[in-house]
Amino acid sequence: MYQLETYRQAFLDYLETQDFSKEPLNLYEPVGYIMGLGGKRMRPILTLMACDLFSKDFKKALPAAMAVEVFHNFSLVHDDIMDDAPLRRGKKTVHEKWDVNTGILSGDAMLINAYQFLETYEGEKLGSLFQLFSKTAIEVCEGQQYDVDFEERNDVSIEEYLKMIEFKTSVLVAAALKMGAIVADADAENQNLIYEFGRNLGIAFQLQDDYLDAFGDPESFGKQVGGDIIENKKTFLYLKAMELGDLDAQKTLNDLFSIQPKDATSKVALVKDIFQLSGATEAILNEVKKYTDFAFDALSKIEASSESKTVFRVFGEQLMNRTA
Amino acid sequence: MYQLETYRQAFLDYLETQDFSKEPLNLYEPVGYIMGLGGKRMRPILTLMACDLFSKDFKKALPAAMAVEVFHNFSLVHDDIMDDAPLRRGKKTVHEKWDVNTGILSGDAMLINAYQFLETYEGEKLGSLFQLFSKTAIEVCEGQQYDVDFEERNDVSIEEYLKMIEFKTSVLVAAALKMGAIVADADAENQNLIYEFGRNLGIAFQLQDDYLDAFGDPESFGKQVGGDIIENKKTFLYLKAMELGDLDAQKTLNDLFSIQPKDATSKVALVKDIFQLSGATEAILNEVKKYTDFAFDALSKIEASSESKTVFRVFGEQLMNRTA
Repeated sequence: MYQLETYRQAFLDYLETQDFSKEPLNLYEPVGYIMGLGGKRMRPILTLMACDLFSKDFKKALPAAMAVEVFHNFSLVHDDIMDDAPLRRGKKTVHEKWDVNTGILSGDAMLINAYQFLETYEGEKLGSLFQLFSKTAIEVCEGQQYDVDFEERNDVSIEEYLKMIEFKTSVLVAAALKMGAIVADADAENQNLIYEFGRNLGIAFQLQDDYLDAFGDPESFGKQVGGDIIENKKTFLYLKAMELGDLDAQKTLNDLFSIQPKDATSKVALVKDIFQLSGATEAILNEVKKYTDFAFDALSKIEASSESKTVFRVFGEQLMNRTA
Repeated sequence: MYQLETYRQAFLDYLETQDFSKEPLNLYEPVGYIMGLGGKRMRPILTLMACDLFSKDFKKALPAAMAVEVFHNFSLVHDDIMDDAPLRRGKKTVHEKWDVNTGILSGDAMLINAYQFLETYEGEKLGSLFQLFSKTAIEVCEGQQYDVDFEERNDVSIEEYLKMIEFKTSVLVAAALKMGAIVADADAENQNLIYEFGRNLGIAFQLQDDYLDAFGDPESFGKQVGGDIIENKKTFLYLKAMELGDLDAQKTLNDLFSIQPKDATSKVALVKDIFQLSGATEAILNEVKKYTDFAFDALSKIEASSESKTVFRVFGEQLMNRTA
């Protein structure tokens, strides 16, 4: 069992061997560009880690790891078009650097290319990988659609919100892990446990992101604190405050989420007060703990030495203690 | 061996069993809409025909046929966005009826869904189908990119143009046939022959389309005759006339292809004269014949009774004699 950095480096070395300067250049240059923008490479690292846990030859999972990372970047390219986002990782998005049509077509090529990386595998393994990959990919699309739909709706339930974040972000993390386990010939029980580890950790992470967006330390939180409130995003905190708050709090919150003042300082402060007083803040922290516990519980049930599972614990703890 | 109508009806019955009213509705309604717009269903019919030729149980190819048709419709949805096309089969395009974001995301879901139809198959067959499907899908994207690139270029060779139309349209026809043959357990030689039948027939068809666009009968040709000339599209006829014509013809053609007069009658007539006098018209008819002969030659080599191949001959002849 290696350190995270070992997996990251192995993945980056494999990425280096990929040829993105193929013809037609206008199709593949944007692919090389987005794949080269960096990022934490969390998903492919998880694929390699999971393979290593069950087989001790993690390099055979490199094509599966690449499939996951190419798919993730495909979704970023198309999402950035839909969100009209100018920047990604501090650089121009593909549709800004080129144009929308290039973003659409290069994204399509990436989705197909992601599938092609799975062709390395054979037999039943191939079937399992393809099935999991497609199921996950379609869930990511559904999650994106729910996210879009929820912006227009005022009756989103907490349950629906949780399903949306599960589909939009957690299932790909879970599938990244399970794909590593499939490549390593882990049995079905262990495949499912590692999937559940990833799925629950993903939900916990996303809920914590909602929490930190309002209450995080501006120094350590990567994004603008209060950003969701400024954009009137109906995150878990909003939905829970609307559920728990009294009529007065509900009305104030509803009013505050229908304005976009130039100086949002007092709006942000008022909303945060309501989140606190309604009990929504406490509720989200309980949910974060619940899903984190689910994740570590699944991890503990995986048939592997405690020592070999250390890297997953460390990974999970680092991910969830990022306020520090 | 049945008539074409038998295959079409079997495909339409299978299409009827598909559920497009799933949640999230905003993702799947556009899928049901575009899949229900009709069209000749040529590609899935070819998949069923090819399966029937080699196995006599064509219904087992229905999921593969659906994969091909869903992929084809995915490419229409995304191409229509890129071309800013308002209409498809006389009805609003998806991005016109909904919006561009819906077109992008529903298209993505269709591409993934197309792959999912292949999950019906197992073992080596699954591997072969996936590999052919991805290879074809990426070629279709490359063909679309070449088409976009060529609009900006003045140095496109005939060879490049032929590769573009091969990728953009022929390979999917060829793959539709080969997928039917794979499902039917045809051997590699026969799989390749039926692929070559489709690939060459597809190129012949597309070149004939270029010819008919200029010289077709306005009564029987589905599109506006002269449309390519009016839009300054550098089709085979243009490229060949630039190659064969004298300097004077080249200059005139170049000038005519840089204007867009409101009344294009005389422009169309002048361009058609140059196509004729330069020998480009004769050349394209020779090419159509050449690729049609290639197609029928491949068909004749397929190990199957002449009788069972009749439906392919009839199909090819109907396709190529559509001027009548």
